[in-house]
Parts: sequence; C-alpha cells; structure tokens
Amino acid sequence: MPQTRLKNEAPEPGLARVLQALGDPIRLELVRQLARRGEVPCGGFDLDMPKSSLSHHLRVLREAGILGTRAEGTCVMNFLCRDRLERRFPGLLEGILRNL
Amino acid sequence: MPQTRLKNEAPEPGLARVLQALGDPIRLELVRQLARRGEVPCGGFDLDMPKSSLSHHLRVLREAGILGTRAEGTCVMNFLCRDRLERRFPGLLEGILRNL
Repeated sequence: MPQTRLKNEAPEPGLARVLQALGDPIRLELVRQLARRGEVPCGGFDLDMPKSSLSHHLRVLREAGILGTRAEGTCVMNFLCRDRLERRFPGLLEGILRNL
Repeated sequence: MPQTRLKNEAPEPGLARVLQALGDPIRLELVRQLARRGEVPCGGFDLDMPKSSLSHHLRVLREAGILGTRAEGTCVMNFLCRDRLERRFPGLLEGILRNL
C-alpha cells in the first residue's frame, strides 16, 4: 500500500535508485569526503573535475536522497543525509562507508 | 599497490561496480530470491520476464562478482557469492539484504 504523501511531494527514492546513485567511483568519492568532513561547500571537494560534472554528480546524489544542502551566506553546503538514510535503509550507509 | 593476479584473471570488480549492478529493481529482486532460497536454477526465478532479459540481469550480477553459478546435470544453478562479497566488502551485502 503506498504511503500517504503531501501533494506534489516526490516519493522517497527506493533502494535501487540509491544504489544506482552510489554505483559510480566519483560519487563514492564525494560520499567518502562528505563522511569524513561533515559538510563541504560545492567548491571545496578535493576532486579535479569540471564544475558542470561535479554539479551533475552532486545532483544525482541529492535526488537519490543521499545528500542534502543548506545555504550558508552565499555558499551552499553539502552534507550526507545520514539519519534519513538510516531510517529508510537501516545499516545500508554504514555497510558502504566502511568500505570507502 | 595492485594485488598479484594470475595471468588473464580479471580484476575483482570494485565497490562502484557492485553497487551499480545492484542498482536495479529487477536485479535486487533476483538477489532477494537467491538470498531466501539459497540456489535457484535459471528457469526457477519467480519473475515474469523474457528469458533474454533475465539472462542479461543474471550476467550483470555474475560479472560484478555478486552471483556465482555451478552446473548440476544439464541445469545451471545460481547462488549468491556471500563469502566472497563479505571478504571484499565487509557488511555491504548484509546492509542491502536487510532492506530487501
């Protein structure tokens, strides 16, 4: 039975989508850096790649519910949605982080 | 430093490849059935799909090192490579199976 949702609220991404988003070496590296550093501004990742590619990878992670953002002044801070993921998929993120 | 490998032996798939292989609802369902039933012959999955599609999904899982096969008479039995996965990525499969 589908869960009740607010109108216009997107459904929570399922497990397959979360795994698909994580199934990329660049995105795993972003997750690794976020896990170690807590919050990272968009320009603060230690990765040598075009800004447009980085934006794409961050968007995939965000749309899968893995990554959240918050504004800090003119800066956008990225963070892992650890609690949300743990509620939805207990043990999943932990099982991945320990292998990064 | 790369691990020593036998000549012509393919490198073990990395974490990103394993997650990518698992990032599909059909393949997660195959993994779920294998986890519950132990071994499943190719024609024995409870899924209504063309044989060619099933073969494709089984091959993706096999090439990612998630699924193994063994011949039993004229039949090919499929099984989860639990021990191998646990050695390579401790806690990963468990973190996924508990959410299926």
